[in-house]
Amino acid sequence: MMGRNPFTLIERHACCGGEVHFLSHQSQELGLPARVSIFLPVKALAGDRVPAIHVLAGLTCTQETFLIKSNAIRHAADHGLALVAPDTSSRGANVAGEDDAYDLGTGAGYYVDATTDPWAAHYRMGSYVRRELPALVEEHFPIMAGRRGIMGHSMGGMGALAVALGDAGAWQTVSAFAPISSPSQVDWGHKVTDAYFGGHEAEWAQYDPCLLLEAGMTHPGTLLVDQGLDDEFLSRLQPERLEQAAKAAGQSLTLRRHEGYDHSYWFVQSFIQDHLKHHAEGLL
Amino acid sequence: MMGRNPFTLIERHACCGGEVHFLSHQSQELGLPARVSIFLPVKALAGDRVPAIHVLAGLTCTQETFLIKSNAIRHAADHGLALVAPDTSSRGANVAGEDDAYDLGTGAGYYVDATTDPWAAHYRMGSYVRRELPALVEEHFPIMAGRRGIMGHSMGGMGALAVALGDAGAWQTVSAFAPISSPSQVDWGHKVTDAYFGGHEAEWAQYDPCLLLEAGMTHPGTLLVDQGLDDEFLSRLQPERLEQAAKAAGQSLTLRRHEGYDHSYWFVQSFIQDHLKHHAEGLL
Repeated sequence: MMGRNPFTLIERHACCGGEVHFLSHQSQELGLPARVSIFLPVKALAGDRVPAIHVLAGLTCTQETFLIKSNAIRHAADHGLALVAPDTSSRGANVAGEDDAYDLGTGAGYYVDATTDPWAAHYRMGSYVRRELPALVEEHFPIMAGRRGIMGHSMGGMGALAVALGDAGAWQTVSAFAPISSPSQVDWGHKVTDAYFGGHEAEWAQYDPCLLLEAGMTHPGTLLVDQGLDDEFLSRLQPERLEQAAKAAGQSLTLRRHEGYDHSYWFVQSFIQDHLKHHAEGLL
Repeated sequence: MMGRNPFTLIERHACCGGEVHFLSHQSQELGLPARVSIFLPVKALAGDRVPAIHVLAGLTCTQETFLIKSNAIRHAADHGLALVAPDTSSRGANVAGEDDAYDLGTGAGYYVDATTDPWAAHYRMGSYVRRELPALVEEHFPIMAGRRGIMGHSMGGMGALAVALGDAGAWQTVSAFAPISSPSQVDWGHKVTDAYFGGHEAEWAQYDPCLLLEAGMTHPGTLLVDQGLDDEFLSRLQPERLEQAAKAAGQSLTLRRHEGYDHSYWFVQSFIQDHLKHHAEGLL
């Protein structure tokens, strides 16, 4: 039985034969209003359910960034796939200091559930992107239930890999651009450990792609990962760690290294077409 | 003989096999530093000169907007064309009130030369986009001399049509998204008349696409124009006036009306591929 539609439409724009919707809704997991952007291809507007790719953006971004800057919509439209783009953190939690740094608090939810006060009440993007949001969009939009891909960039690439490795049955396809391969091992993750996890590094077990692989959590599909070799954050992204962990776990991984490309969406848009093709092959 | 290179590189990003450059330079026409973004396809990076499409953005935009939001780069790369994106006005002229309204002053240069103080000294985007910028980029980048297309959106669509109609020999191809067809006839243009032109409506003769057509200024190519029918500014864009003026002048025009599309870049990106194809056919 369909629940009351919790989404409020803020903006709607025709795009590439389909529509982009900017929405808000009250999130149970976050305990706050949340924003999400959705692209529906023409087939979905006609009432047919289509598979969706959830797209997770990186530090400082919002629910609009990936759709504006990645060029994903053109190719999603061509394949007849929906796109679902959540925000990158809770907004309005009013935790002291949450707006002070680009890499902690607002815009930096890391797609994890915080376990320690004052963050634990509202910083729960982990459960939000893994369960609440997919269930809600599949209930209230012409999106196929349980037929899902996930991809992301940087912090969002980490999130996409972790979500798919953590529950491979729920996500048929996965890809990432310049993901943080093992957040527990680098500065960004250490800040998260200290703040969201109250110093408990073990919490990373369900969110760190390399730790998941090392624990034997694999995905039956191929992980498609693109990485620029002029990426200014390369030493914190550690694609070589991902490569080693995948190899040891027997995880199929296509890791493509690109000479001259940096960490920006200029890089993401350069290879987005291949990602949409990868997801379309697994979802359609 | 090549002059001293006046461009300062602010940012460079690999993109779609080529590079996006964010640049600044001291403009002689504007009497101020100006910003411009350029996309160079792989062929140009290898040293071969390629034709360029100049892209003019609309009110409130900057030299970054069109390249970030239109998806033009993917298709320019595929065709081997450069893109040149100027700012939408002078910046730093320090005219009283220039930052007060979205549709006059900064972000609203209308691609015209102001003729009245205090605007006349620096608000000279007309001469800048028609002569100074094309000459400079053709001298200092691997861009073919005199092999040029021009396109734009809204105020920039107006600019593109006016530039090409005003000097058809210098611009081989032209297209526009939701252009202001006859600025002299609508509120936006009346503000420009009062401010930049000191009340002299006759100045519009060289900048108003419909007035140019009515004066017999035509272009040997086809004007490709896309217009959304849910455009919130439709009554000020007046595509029907453009259609009438083109017909009366014997100007070839392909005006496509799109049900459900609004004025945004979500509309622009939906049809950008056809525009790049149109320019490629005329320039290559």
